[in-house]
Amino acid sequence: MAKELKELTPREENYSQWYNDLVVKADLAENSAVRGCMVIKPYGYAIWEKIQRQLDDMFKETGHVNAYFPLLIPKSFLSREADHVEGFAKECAVVTHYRLKNSEEGKGVVVDPEARLEEELIIRPTSETIIWNTYKNWIQSYRDLPILCNQWANVMRWEMRTRLFLRTAEFLWQEGHTAHATEEEALEEARKMLDVYAEFAEKYMAVPVVKGIKSANERFAGAVETFCIEAMMQDGKALQAGTSHFLGQNFAKAFDVQFVTKENKLDYVWATSWGVSTRLMGALIMAHSDNNGLVLPPALAPFQVVIVPIYKGDDQLAMINEKADALVKELKALGVSVKYDNADNKKPGWKFSEYELKGVPVRVVLGARDLENGMVEIMRRDKLEKTSVAYEGVAQYIKELLNDIQANIFQKALDYRASVTREVNSYDEFKVEIEKGGFISAHWDGTPETEELIKQETKATIRCIPLDGDTTPGVCMVTGRPSARRVLFARAY
Amino acid sequence: MAKELKELTPREENYSQWYNDLVVKADLAENSAVRGCMVIKPYGYAIWEKIQRQLDDMFKETGHVNAYFPLLIPKSFLSREADHVEGFAKECAVVTHYRLKNSEEGKGVVVDPEARLEEELIIRPTSETIIWNTYKNWIQSYRDLPILCNQWANVMRWEMRTRLFLRTAEFLWQEGHTAHATEEEALEEARKMLDVYAEFAEKYMAVPVVKGIKSANERFAGAVETFCIEAMMQDGKALQAGTSHFLGQNFAKAFDVQFVTKENKLDYVWATSWGVSTRLMGALIMAHSDNNGLVLPPALAPFQVVIVPIYKGDDQLAMINEKADALVKELKALGVSVKYDNADNKKPGWKFSEYELKGVPVRVVLGARDLENGMVEIMRRDKLEKTSVAYEGVAQYIKELLNDIQANIFQKALDYRASVTREVNSYDEFKVEIEKGGFISAHWDGTPETEELIKQETKATIRCIPLDGDTTPGVCMVTGRPSARRVLFARAY
Repeated sequence: MAKELKELTPREENYSQWYNDLVVKADLAENSAVRGCMVIKPYGYAIWEKIQRQLDDMFKETGHVNAYFPLLIPKSFLSREADHVEGFAKECAVVTHYRLKNSEEGKGVVVDPEARLEEELIIRPTSETIIWNTYKNWIQSYRDLPILCNQWANVMRWEMRTRLFLRTAEFLWQEGHTAHATEEEALEEARKMLDVYAEFAEKYMAVPVVKGIKSANERFAGAVETFCIEAMMQDGKALQAGTSHFLGQNFAKAFDVQFVTKENKLDYVWATSWGVSTRLMGALIMAHSDNNGLVLPPALAPFQVVIVPIYKGDDQLAMINEKADALVKELKALGVSVKYDNADNKKPGWKFSEYELKGVPVRVVLGARDLENGMVEIMRRDKLEKTSVAYEGVAQYIKELLNDIQANIFQKALDYRASVTREVNSYDEFKVEIEKGGFISAHWDGTPETEELIKQETKATIRCIPLDGDTTPGVCMVTGRPSARRVLFARAY
Repeated sequence: MAKELKELTPREENYSQWYNDLVVKADLAENSAVRGCMVIKPYGYAIWEKIQRQLDDMFKETGHVNAYFPLLIPKSFLSREADHVEGFAKECAVVTHYRLKNSEEGKGVVVDPEARLEEELIIRPTSETIIWNTYKNWIQSYRDLPILCNQWANVMRWEMRTRLFLRTAEFLWQEGHTAHATEEEALEEARKMLDVYAEFAEKYMAVPVVKGIKSANERFAGAVETFCIEAMMQDGKALQAGTSHFLGQNFAKAFDVQFVTKENKLDYVWATSWGVSTRLMGALIMAHSDNNGLVLPPALAPFQVVIVPIYKGDDQLAMINEKADALVKELKALGVSVKYDNADNKKPGWKFSEYELKGVPVRVVLGARDLENGMVEIMRRDKLEKTSVAYEGVAQYIKELLNDIQANIFQKALDYRASVTREVNSYDEFKVEIEKGGFISAHWDGTPETEELIKQETKATIRCIPLDGDTTPGVCMVTGRPSARRVLFARAY
C-alpha cells in the first residue's frame, strides 16, 4: 500500500500526469459522474476552507460584506451587455424545464414537455447581470453608495477540456461586486482588491505573483480594464491566479442603474468585480509540490504538524502517548495545528509516505529510544531534511520552523521564477525561448492583431502588462512598430 | 423615512404580511428576478454566517469533515431509489442543453438545438444519489468506515408557492451524509445529529424545539426513519426546523455500495443524512420578533450592541467619541460585538427605529448631559425597556445583560409554546382546538389513512411522535382503534 501510494508519475517524465496523480492520490479531488464536475474530497476541501477563511477576513477588513444572489439567470439578462454576452452566453448550462414525470413505459423518469419554461434560465457563469439587476433597486442616491458586496458561490462554464481544479465545468469561487459614485473610487477599489489578492497569494500561498493589466484580448467580457495576478508554475507555464475588473459604467448602463449625485445630477453608477476560485488550489499544488507529493505552505495546511510514534509493546506506547499529548497541548497553545497519529493498524513507514504525500509541513517522530535520551526526530517536508532535537522546547522550535518553511518555499518559488524570467529582443529569439517556458519580457506594438499572431505561432499569450515593470519604450519584436513598454509573455494554464 | 421604516403591518392584523414586511424592511432578503429565488441581503446573510459558523464548529466537534459534491445530478440517478424518485424527481430544474448561440434574427441569444445533452441533468434537490454514487468508490472495507461528510451548498426544488426563507426554489443548506458499518452506529449518528440540531436551536437561536420521529407520511423519501425538531411560531403554527434521517441500507443497495466486514463477509453500508437550511432564518425571525421589528438572540446577532451619540456641536461630539471608543474597546475585550454609529446625516430618532427594526439586542445612548453625570442610557430590545446605568462598569453590565436577553427570549418562547400546547381527547374537540393554533397532543391509530383524513379535514399534520412525550396507550380520537401513544398535531409552515 505504501508503495502504491507513493507511485506518483515523476514530474520530469510527465508533468501533467504527475499533477493528476497528485490531486487524486493526496485525496484532494476526483472526477465525478457528471462530465467536467469534480468532487472536492475532505482533505482538499480543508485547504479550500483555509483559503476561504483567510480571504474572507481580508475582505471584511477592507470593508466588504457577504450576500447571496440567485444561481439562475434569465437568458435575456446575458444579452444586455454586448461584450458580456459574447464572452459568457455561449458554453453554459441551460435550464429549459421545471418538471420530470414517470415515463409512459413505466421505467424511470422523463422530462415533462408541458413544464417548459417561458424563458430559459442559465446557471450563472458569473453574476454581474443578476447582481446589477438587483442593485438597480438598491441605489437611488450617492448616499446609497458605495455598495461593497462579496458572494461565495458555485458557478458553471461548460468547458470542453477539463482538469481538476484548473479548469472544471462547475467551480467554487468568490465574486466581489461593488458600486461606486465616481470613476476614481471604482478604479481605486479594483486596484485595492488586486493588492489583497497579491498579498494573499504571496503571504499565505507562498506563491509570488506579478501584478499587471490584461491586454484587450485577455480582458474580462464587459470590463474596461482587467487587473490580474500571474503566477509561474514549476513546468514554466504561467497561471492566472486572480482578476479584478474595473467595469466602468457598462453594467450600470445595461441595467439602467442611475443615481442622484451630491451635485443633484443623474449619473450612471461605476462598478468593479473581482474573483478567485478553486483554481487557486491548482496553483498551490503546482507551485511547490515534488515527486514525493504535496508541499503545503504552513499557513494553509489543514494540519501543520503530524506526530508519529515508534514503539514496541504497550509500555513504550503508553510512555510515548503521554509525551505526545503534552506536546500536542503545547503546540496548540502556540497556535500550531497538529495531528497525533497513533493508529495501530498502519506501520510508521506507511504513515511517513502518507503524510509526505499530503504535504504536512512538519513530521515529528517520537521513538522510545530517542525519548529515553530526551530527543525527538523532526522532518521538514519542504527540504525532506531530518534533524534530531531535544524534546524540551521542541514546540517552540517547531513554531519557528514553520515560519522558516513558509519563508523558504516562497523564496524557492521566487528564485525559480527569477531563473525563468528573461528579456528577449527579437521574434526569432522569442520563438526559441518560449519553448523553454517561463516569463518572457518583450516589446509589443499594442495591437490585438500582433498578439493574436504571436499566440497562433507560439501558443504564448500576453500574461499582463506589469504594474511595476520596465517602462522604457522600444520597438515591437514582431512588427518593428513602436512599443510603449515591455510586456510579459508566457504559455499559460 | 423613520416613519416609513417603522411601518410594519401589525402582527395581529395580518401575520403573513407582517413577516414579509419584516424580512424586506429589515434588509434580510428580497425576491429576485428569477421566480422563487431570493436575494439574501448583507444583514440577513450576516445572520446566516453566524448560524453556519456555529453549526460548522459543532459538526467538527462531533468528528465531521466538509467536502463538496457536484451541483448537477444525472436524471437516471434519481430513479435508482424507488421512494426517493417519487419524492424528489418531480418538481426540479432540468438542464437539457449546454450552449446558446446568437439568434438568426440577430437579436439576443437562443438555445442551440445541436447542444442537447444525451442525458438531462437535474439541479440537486438533495445529494444522496450523487454522493452514494461517489461513496461506492471510497468504500471497500470496514476500515474505510465510518465516513462522516458534510456539505454546505445550494439546492433547488421547484416550489409553486414560495415565501422568503420559509419556502424558496433555491435555498442554502448543509447536508450531512454518513456511511457506517453497522445499523446501530448509523442510528446513533442520526440521533446524535438530531441532538446537535436541538442544542443549536435552543442555545443559539433561543427557539425551543420538540425532538421526535416523523410518521410514515411525513418521512423523507428514501429514509427508514426521519427524526426531526419542531418549533412553534408566534401565530400558533409549527415549523419543522431540521431533520436527521436513518436511511438504512436503501442508498447502498440502490448504488451497490458493499464492504467487507470485520468478519470478512460482504454487506451493504448503513447510511444517514441530515440537514438544516436557510429556513432556520424564517424560524428565527418568526419566533421572537414584534411589531417594532426583529428581535435577535444575542448569540446570532451580526452586532450585539449599537452605540448612538446625542450631542450638540463638535465639542460635545469629540467628548462622546472618546467615551464611545473606550467603551467599544472594553466591549470587544469582553467578546461583545458592537457598532458605533456616529454618522451625522441621520437623526438619533431615525437610528433608534432602524436598530429596533434590525433587532440589535442592546442600544446604548451616549448623551452629553448624561455623561457629565457619569451615566448612559441602555435599552434592551427584547423588552424595549430603558435603564440609566453608570458609565463606569457599563461594559460588564452589558455583557451580563446580553446573557439575560438570550435567556429571556428563550424562556418567553418556551412559555408561549407551553401556553398553546394541550391534550385533546375527542375529534370534535380537536376540530375546535386546532383553529386556535398551537400543538395538540392526541391519540392516533398509527395509520397513514387516519392521518390523511385528519389533514384533509383540519389542515393539521402529525408534526412528530415526541421522543420524550407521554407513552401511555389510549384510543384514536378519530377511529376509536387502539393508539400506542399520543402524538403532536399542528398546522405547519
